[in-house]
Amino acid sequence: MSSPVFILNGPNLNLLGTRETDIYGQASLEDIEALCRDTAGTLGLDIEFRQSNHEGMLVDWIQEAGRDGAALIINAAAYTHTSVALLDALKALSVPVIEVHLSNIFARDEFRHHSYVSPAAMGIICGFGPKGYQLALDAVYDSLMQL
Amino acid sequence: MSSPVFILNGPNLNLLGTRETDIYGQASLEDIEALCRDTAGTLGLDIEFRQSNHEGMLVDWIQEAGRDGAALIINAAAYTHTSVALLDALKALSVPVIEVHLSNIFARDEFRHHSYVSPAAMGIICGFGPKGYQLALDAVYDSLMQL
Amino acid sequence: MSSPVFILNGPNLNLLGTRETDIYGQASLEDIEALCRDTAGTLGLDIEFRQSNHEGMLVDWIQEAGRDGAALIINAAAYTHTSVALLDALKALSVPVIEVHLSNIFARDEFRHHSYVSPAAMGIICGFGPKGYQLALDAVYDSLMQL
Amino acid sequence: MSSPVFILNGPNLNLLGTRETDIYGQASLEDIEALCRDTAGTLGLDIEFRQSNHEGMLVDWIQEAGRDGAALIINAAAYTHTSVALLDALKALSVPVIEVHLSNIFARDEFRHHSYVSPAAMGIICGFGPKGYQLALDAVYDSLMQL
Amino acid sequence: MSSPVFILNGPNLNLLGTRETDIYGQASLEDIEALCRDTAGTLGLDIEFRQSNHEGMLVDWIQEAGRDGAALIINAAAYTHTSVALLDALKALSVPVIEVHLSNIFARDEFRHHSYVSPAAMGIICGFGPKGYQLALDAVYDSLMQL
Amino acid sequence: MSSPVFILNGPNLNLLGTRETDIYGQASLEDIEALCRDTAGTLGLDIEFRQSNHEGMLVDWIQEAGRDGAALIINAAAYTHTSVALLDALKALSVPVIEVHLSNIFARDEFRHHSYVSPAAMGIICGFGPKGYQLALDAVYDSLMQL
Amino acid sequence: MSSPVFILNGPNLNLLGTRETDIYGQASLEDIEALCRDTAGTLGLDIEFRQSNHEGMLVDWIQEAGRDGAALIINAAAYTHTSVALLDALKALSVPVIEVHLSNIFARDEFRHHSYVSPAAMGIICGFGPKGYQLALDAVYDSLMQL
Amino acid sequence: MSSPVFILNGPNLNLLGTRETDIYGQASLEDIEALCRDTAGTLGLDIEFRQSNHEGMLVDWIQEAGRDGAALIINAAAYTHTSVALLDALKALSVPVIEVHLSNIFARDEFRHHSYVSPAAMGIICGFGPKGYQLALDAVYDSLMQL
Amino acid sequence: MSSPVFILNGPNLNLLGTRETDIYGQASLEDIEALCRDTAGTLGLDIEFRQSNHEGMLVDWIQEAGRDGAALIINAAAYTHTSVALLDALKALSVPVIEVHLSNIFARDEFRHHSYVSPAAMGIICGFGPKGYQLALDAVYDSLMQL
Amino acid sequence: MSSPVFILNGPNLNLLGTRETDIYGQASLEDIEALCRDTAGTLGLDIEFRQSNHEGMLVDWIQEAGRDGAALIINAAAYTHTSVALLDALKALSVPVIEVHLSNIFARDEFRHHSYVSPAAMGIICGFGPKGYQLALDAVYDSLMQL
Amino acid sequence: MSSPVFILNGPNLNLLGTRETDIYGQASLEDIEALCRDTAGTLGLDIEFRQSNHEGMLVDWIQEAGRDGAALIINAAAYTHTSVALLDALKALSVPVIEVHLSNIFARDEFRHHSYVSPAAMGIICGFGPKGYQLALDAVYDSLMQL
Amino acid sequence: MSSPVFILNGPNLNLLGTRETDIYGQASLEDIEALCRDTAGTLGLDIEFRQSNHEGMLVDWIQEAGRDGAALIINAAAYTHTSVALLDALKALSVPVIEVHLSNIFARDEFRHHSYVSPAAMGIICGFGPKGYQLALDAVYDSLMQL
Repeated sequence: MSSPVFILNGPNLNLLGTRETDIYGQASLEDIEALCRDTAGTLGLDIEFRQSNHEGMLVDWIQEAGRDGAALIINAAAYTHTSVALLDALKALSVPVIEVHLSNIFARDEFRHHSYVSPAAMGIICGFGPKGYQLALDAVYDSLMQL
Repeated sequence: MSSPVFILNGPNLNLLGTRETDIYGQASLEDIEALCRDTAGTLGLDIEFRQSNHEGMLVDWIQEAGRDGAALIINAAAYTHTSVALLDALKALSVPVIEVHLSNIFARDEFRHHSYVSPAAMGIICGFGPKGYQLALDAVYDSLMQL
Repeated sequence: MSSPVFILNGPNLNLLGTRETDIYGQASLEDIEALCRDTAGTLGLDIEFRQSNHEGMLVDWIQEAGRDGAALIINAAAYTHTSVALLDALKALSVPVIEVHLSNIFARDEFRHHSYVSPAAMGIICGFGPKGYQLALDAVYDSLMQL
Repeated sequence: MSSPVFILNGPNLNLLGTRETDIYGQASLEDIEALCRDTAGTLGLDIEFRQSNHEGMLVDWIQEAGRDGAALIINAAAYTHTSVALLDALKALSVPVIEVHLSNIFARDEFRHHSYVSPAAMGIICGFGPKGYQLALDAVYDSLMQL
Repeated sequence: MSSPVFILNGPNLNLLGTRETDIYGQASLEDIEALCRDTAGTLGLDIEFRQSNHEGMLVDWIQEAGRDGAALIINAAAYTHTSVALLDALKALSVPVIEVHLSNIFARDEFRHHSYVSPAAMGIICGFGPKGYQLALDAVYDSLMQL
Repeated sequence: MSSPVFILNGPNLNLLGTRETDIYGQASLEDIEALCRDTAGTLGLDIEFRQSNHEGMLVDWIQEAGRDGAALIINAAAYTHTSVALLDALKALSVPVIEVHLSNIFARDEFRHHSYVSPAAMGIICGFGPKGYQLALDAVYDSLMQL
Repeated sequence: MSSPVFILNGPNLNLLGTRETDIYGQASLEDIEALCRDTAGTLGLDIEFRQSNHEGMLVDWIQEAGRDGAALIINAAAYTHTSVALLDALKALSVPVIEVHLSNIFARDEFRHHSYVSPAAMGIICGFGPKGYQLALDAVYDSLMQL
Repeated sequence: MSSPVFILNGPNLNLLGTRETDIYGQASLEDIEALCRDTAGTLGLDIEFRQSNHEGMLVDWIQEAGRDGAALIINAAAYTHTSVALLDALKALSVPVIEVHLSNIFARDEFRHHSYVSPAAMGIICGFGPKGYQLALDAVYDSLMQL
Repeated sequence: MSSPVFILNGPNLNLLGTRETDIYGQASLEDIEALCRDTAGTLGLDIEFRQSNHEGMLVDWIQEAGRDGAALIINAAAYTHTSVALLDALKALSVPVIEVHLSNIFARDEFRHHSYVSPAAMGIICGFGPKGYQLALDAVYDSLMQL
Repeated sequence: MSSPVFILNGPNLNLLGTRETDIYGQASLEDIEALCRDTAGTLGLDIEFRQSNHEGMLVDWIQEAGRDGAALIINAAAYTHTSVALLDALKALSVPVIEVHLSNIFARDEFRHHSYVSPAAMGIICGFGPKGYQLALDAVYDSLMQL
Repeated sequence: MSSPVFILNGPNLNLLGTRETDIYGQASLEDIEALCRDTAGTLGLDIEFRQSNHEGMLVDWIQEAGRDGAALIINAAAYTHTSVALLDALKALSVPVIEVHLSNIFARDEFRHHSYVSPAAMGIICGFGPKGYQLALDAVYDSLMQL
Repeated sequence: MSSPVFILNGPNLNLLGTRETDIYGQASLEDIEALCRDTAGTLGLDIEFRQSNHEGMLVDWIQEAGRDGAALIINAAAYTHTSVALLDALKALSVPVIEVHLSNIFARDEFRHHSYVSPAAMGIICGFGPKGYQLALDAVYDSLMQL
């Protein structure tokens, strides 16, 4: 299990802690990365934590996770709702995929209720803020234990 | 925190382990209850674990949870997609509400993609099987710690 | 005219005065019952005032009203928007049926704009809070006078 | 409370008592005005009762009611379903607005189920024939008493 | 084949023979039960004939039929069009399921054209009045003969 | 048959012959009136030929036609597609109503395919330019002959 | 102008005078043909009057009319609403095409409001019964005169 | 009752037993005809059993059944979902009409859920394979007995 | 360039400065007229500034602008979303047409996102409050310079 | 490989070269047949080239191709968009099926974007005019080589 | 006010002056930049003028404008209609945002009528060609003056 | 004809041969490039074969093809269904554009049935696997021969 768990973050998540804090909370992306490293360490997991505003870059990284990763946790942010390219990239993976959102997307705009990521994910966790990443890592660990 | 966490299960979940095991898995509802009791014990939480096929009964229990519970975890099963009554009952709660589904409802029939529970929930966890209840308890604990 | 006017209340209305008071107001269901008894007394009408969270129970009571009642006033709450069973039960009645809502359902969520009760009702009164029940009793009285 | 309650009637209501009497009843608009004057007198209210087939005239009158009236009762008839101009005029009012319809519009053509008036009204009364105007005056009185 | 054939009837069917007889005919539910007992007797089948206005009760009984019945004939009435809970209960059955309606639901309101029962049924019979139950029993017999 | 046939023309038809002549042709509204007078004379019919840009005025005139006219020919132009008020006014008529359009509205914008006038008309004639008014007068004559 | 005007009639029009006479009237198709021959004679036009229940036959005949006819009057009946093949055949014609319907299709079922014939027709005449064929011949004559 | 019961079969049903046998079963159309003759003989009914791939031919035959038949059983196959011409032909019949489908069309493609045949049928039987034809004959017999 | 630029304002804009000032701002329509006169003076343009609550009056004025104006700036307010009559009137103009809205209509109710004015306008300016009228005059000037 | 490749052409394709040549080009159907015979000869394939305006005839021929053909190339023209009967016939085939269209149907009317043929075809070629038939034969050849 | 106004241009705008000049005009993007520099100079504003075909790059630049810019003018071109990522980036800004389009997008394809940019913009200017950028700068200036 | 034919491949096509081989086949993108070079060589064409996961890069390359290419073959993969930017870039080309898909997209998810590429393409070829690229080159050659 020395392959890392990829944790990919989509557009504008680099603004966390400054943008619309009533929706996304006070934590910065660095805070979340630290939280993830901490949790992963406890579980004995390596992580590869990245963010990009570019859809194509996320596709590249998902493919990389398919080759080199043990699992994939993805918060695709805005691309969640518009990207068939992400869907196709995720469907090519054989490792576990978990979709995370900081906010409860079902309590927001109608167009945020549909996710192209979900059909390719094992499970979805949304609405718990940074805690959601911890839950996802716990679920990844549980899933890898069962292989 | 001596008030219990209510864990309510909707219609047909009493058939778990026998019904459509390719979708819902091998675990029975009793197995899940045991898992929950175990996890809750570790976290120092009390639980009240129930199941009903009756929408009205679930409404009654949600109201009871609002009076006597510390938090509510609900897998409303089929009523997730059709019950405004559950939505209204949940909106009346001031304690944390978490929605759980065993299967990934977004990878199933179109009519299972909409949830009347979600807008009234803090967060949603779906697709992880019985593990999802554990994650929900963890999230409840985290949430109660922050009050 | 010794048969009572049935006044049936749907799910979560037992929470009135505590739940979302910005929408539903401060009056409890007991307050509304008292108001109704008062008004009915003035008009020389008997009332049968009930509440249930169970769709099936409401169907049972509507049937009872069809047998034993002089008229029916119904605030079906959440079941207004989802229950064909209520519609069918109401269509079997030959006594006057009046639909009441405390809030203005047309100024709320889109899914609350459609009512399965309306096509089977003589008339609809909504948005006046507890006063709406008084108006409904007045309308019932007026209607019974014309028979 | 010497300002009058405006009671505005929309297109074709001047034909009442002659047009489609199975839907709208036998009473003429003059009968309804008399009924309203009678009821208002009992309640100690003045009324200003008008009818027009012109959308723009109704907008003018709604604005006038906003300046000079104590409340507004409106049966916008056909414009109910098509006029954003009425909606905007009504939203500018600070006095109570009540929407009335003689027939049960929810038991008629699909396009009559939507009202641009409702979101700007305190409450809606429909299906009771001329009696509906009396109920509306009663509701206006009740509302003014609470100011 | 000593297990009975469950014949379950949904909301308001207890009113048969009195309610909307132009649509549902003159026969009472007791008449239909007698007809079924008669036909079943001829075919050498036992029946368990029940009616409820409660969705949850119907779910309970479908589960019971799954455990103790040889087959299931269901006229879910209004719940046909709104109940995912019935669908899920029926999908858990391994015995033959037949959907019956007294009236031709496709010649009625648009919202009665969709059935949540149909996808889980072997076949559908509608529009033949009480005779439909006889045809269903005949089909059940035919189906059991082929096992 | 001394009552006139009302021929009512809606908004912007006063611009005929100058506006979008590729769609509406070269004839002015005066030309069409002359053509109508000529044809009506031949058939022994009186006509009352009018045009207005005001929806309310058209409603007034339709009501007038209901009182004083032998029949009504209406080219409601843009109000065809938006005016429930016209529909309601027309439904109150007992004399024959014929809908005319100069252009073929079904070969134009999607929103021009729906007419609120049609359900209240005996028949529709469209696409024949000024000739359509002549056909309509012929149809009116034929209809009046059969009374 | 010695080429005939084709008058084509679609499915079930051979039943006229016997089928649903409240909608389609008492006249048989033979009566209508006689009426057309009479009117055409007066106008100095030849006609070719045919009926078929077969969509393909109607396509064949439309093509024939394109080669040998002076104009085409078509009552495509049910195929009006479903046949792209008719549309394509009609679009290939350079002679005038007129669409006729006996009944007012816009006052009937929703699915009868759309016509695949209309976009390829010069004009539409509907709701006038057999008289509509006379009006169409008049319009054809008028159109041919202008060539 | 010497007039035959027409049993009409639509497009591709001549391929039964060879085409998609997982959906339509092993029986050939000849097998079904034999089964029908057998059942009809027992009930004392004559049958006229036909198949065509041509919509127009089916319309011709339905008209023939209206003239010469005692009843009509129709499995319109693909034309079920697209043919208004069949609907119109069936609506002209005064004899009983029964719609049959071998498969459960409601458990298949969305576009197979709508039937133009159903609104014109007394009842519908689907999902029982060849047995459905027997049930239909039984229903026809029952219906004819009640005339 | 002695012809004036028509600046037409639709329903309820006469209430500016008093109505919903959070949406429409503090400026009155008189303030806006003064601003326009000022800006126009600077640009050497004459203006004709009007307001009406009557759709028909706006149509009349648009026609007048077509005859006597150099350009047209229109804030059709509520009629923007419902008036095909305005669209048709505007399409008849050969002078430049500019659509203005004080508020950003795309950040408001869904039904305000569609404009019947836009397809007939050269350009649209919305969301800038009174400043939008100045920008429109600037654009008019620029457009007239290029003729 | 002595069985022929069936090349079936739907309604109005017999008009090619005369009808709407801007869309369909100058080549006649005879030209296309010659082109196909030429290409097929080069590839060593036999062809059976046919055209019909009758949906039922096309169904008959598809069935024949299923029995006697090596492959099927179909340009169903208008029936592409409306015929479930073609879909069902094609689904019964085990030989390769290729859909061809002369024009780019996705750059035309919205209703031409949906094809009932596509789900039953191996592949689709459209927009290349007569060249498309050559490409289809090439693809057939390639496919047969791989068997 | 030494921070620059960012003027961002989306995909394919680098082709201006060569691509579809009937829609987008003759001016190149360089021409527009020069025009903007000129106008900005007059107003005493600095500008940062950029173009990219990459959605992610535009997101990066919007974030940069949020940090370093005084205001943002954006012509997102094709991404206007598909990019939730742009919407989220724009919602994070506290400086004024103005949406510009060269063409009148409401007079073009239906899918160009919806903008994900608009809800996050102060105002929209479209249809004025390069002049629109000048108007936007004027509006920016006006807005900055009011701070 | 020394300018190359650009063959552009969209997101995830670099995974061919490894991803979902039941849908996309065994061939790698390198295999397809070799096949294309081979075919192009035979036809005397140069090719420029590229792949990117980045939408913006594809837009850049399409623009390059417009400047330097003789024709464009594009398999836009997932961006086919979501990218207006590709559509706009393609519409700016004057060289022939051909759309290719390996799989039959019309036999897959509903959202894959719509293509933003198609309206800007001369023709579409889909469902033939790598062979489709050969057919496209053949079509390009044929098209270039006709210039």
